[in-house]
Amino acid sequence: MPEAVVLLSGGMDSATAAYEAREKGYEIAALHTSYGQRTEGKEYECARWLAGELDAADFLHVETDHLQAIGGSSLTDESMAVGDADEKEGIPDTYVPFRNANLLSMAVSYAETRGAEAIYVGAHTEDFAGYPDCRPAFFEAFQDVVDTGTRPETGISIEVPYVEASKTEIAERGLELGVPYGHTWSCYREEAPACGTCDSCTYRREAFENAGGEDPIEYAEG
Amino acid sequence: MPEAVVLLSGGMDSATAAYEAREKGYEIAALHTSYGQRTEGKEYECARWLAGELDAADFLHVETDHLQAIGGSSLTDESMAVGDADEKEGIPDTYVPFRNANLLSMAVSYAETRGAEAIYVGAHTEDFAGYPDCRPAFFEAFQDVVDTGTRPETGISIEVPYVEASKTEIAERGLELGVPYGHTWSCYREEAPACGTCDSCTYRREAFENAGGEDPIEYAEG
Repeated sequence: MPEAVVLLSGGMDSATAAYEAREKGYEIAALHTSYGQRTEGKEYECARWLAGELDAADFLHVETDHLQAIGGSSLTDESMAVGDADEKEGIPDTYVPFRNANLLSMAVSYAETRGAEAIYVGAHTEDFAGYPDCRPAFFEAFQDVVDTGTRPETGISIEVPYVEASKTEIAERGLELGVPYGHTWSCYREEAPACGTCDSCTYRREAFENAGGEDPIEYAEG
Repeated sequence: MPEAVVLLSGGMDSATAAYEAREKGYEIAALHTSYGQRTEGKEYECARWLAGELDAADFLHVETDHLQAIGGSSLTDESMAVGDADEKEGIPDTYVPFRNANLLSMAVSYAETRGAEAIYVGAHTEDFAGYPDCRPAFFEAFQDVVDTGTRPETGISIEVPYVEASKTEIAERGLELGVPYGHTWSCYREEAPACGTCDSCTYRREAFENAGGEDPIEYAEG
């Protein structure tokens, strides 16, 4: 069975991407990174649970403090507040500079060493409205880096199945795939219950509402 | 004064690149990564000393264990032996899969947050004979990733001044720039004295011999 590395954050997008990879016939090697994000305890717990449920061949937990040390994001800097969804203009304060290149580089090292054929990432269009490292052009450029920067016999494909999709379409797809969304975490602010009003909670709730499905997690507000 | 991030490993190539950046008029922000390489104690010591000597604006020390956890390289896996320079064919056992993408990603996050204009890397042609992530095509592709994956107002240039040069030419340039090579470390095997026979020692000694300069460090053999 061919193997795919999945960047499994514990959120709903990456969880759906993992079930998508399994549906495509891949065995899963899950990579979860703790980089100092606020709600990491809960995210790790969800990622670990999902990897078990997916019967993953491996679970690699990377702990690194460099993104927090570098700073520049409310997601990793406790002294910055996480803004509400309606407060923002331009790139949100939660943007972690070049985070996805850091995570993808780890995933490629992992995939090259294991001989995995693909890397699945749950990024999508509503991310790239705000985050430069979620745009299709970014992933296309990264594919060239992978092709030039790994052993010649390596053939790793960066798969971003929802890169052109909306979060609503991800929820629809995930409900179809039977993704256990009760074991995913999206809130940027709190570990339980979810705040309900940050960017991430707001988009998640809208997605479930639009998809006509039920979001099984609890919210503090709204 | 514009700022450049330098990937300062503590080896002779990155030390030379740092002096090159200073010569070009940049203030230096040094990034040193401990990723479980065998001779890290010595490398860190050299990088720290060089940053002080260069009057660097900042020194960021990243410690991460993910490359060691991923494995696949004699540089980070104590159970694998580091081969001699004359033993190898194809890609050397010291190749750390996709290492440079991991290091460059950290450097871009750091540069984006600080507003630095360039990232200096000491990679060169004799590396890319063996390491895929040292080739010009890799760095060119990475530049596209930087351009697409950072904030629109960011303009970070990846500078690899010796990418087409030999190690001899680096030694020549460094002797001209007055790089304090007594405070650089290249050996892959040992922390003192340098073994004298691994790839890295062998190429370094040849470079100094060809450049007609003196290598101020001690070797155990040869």
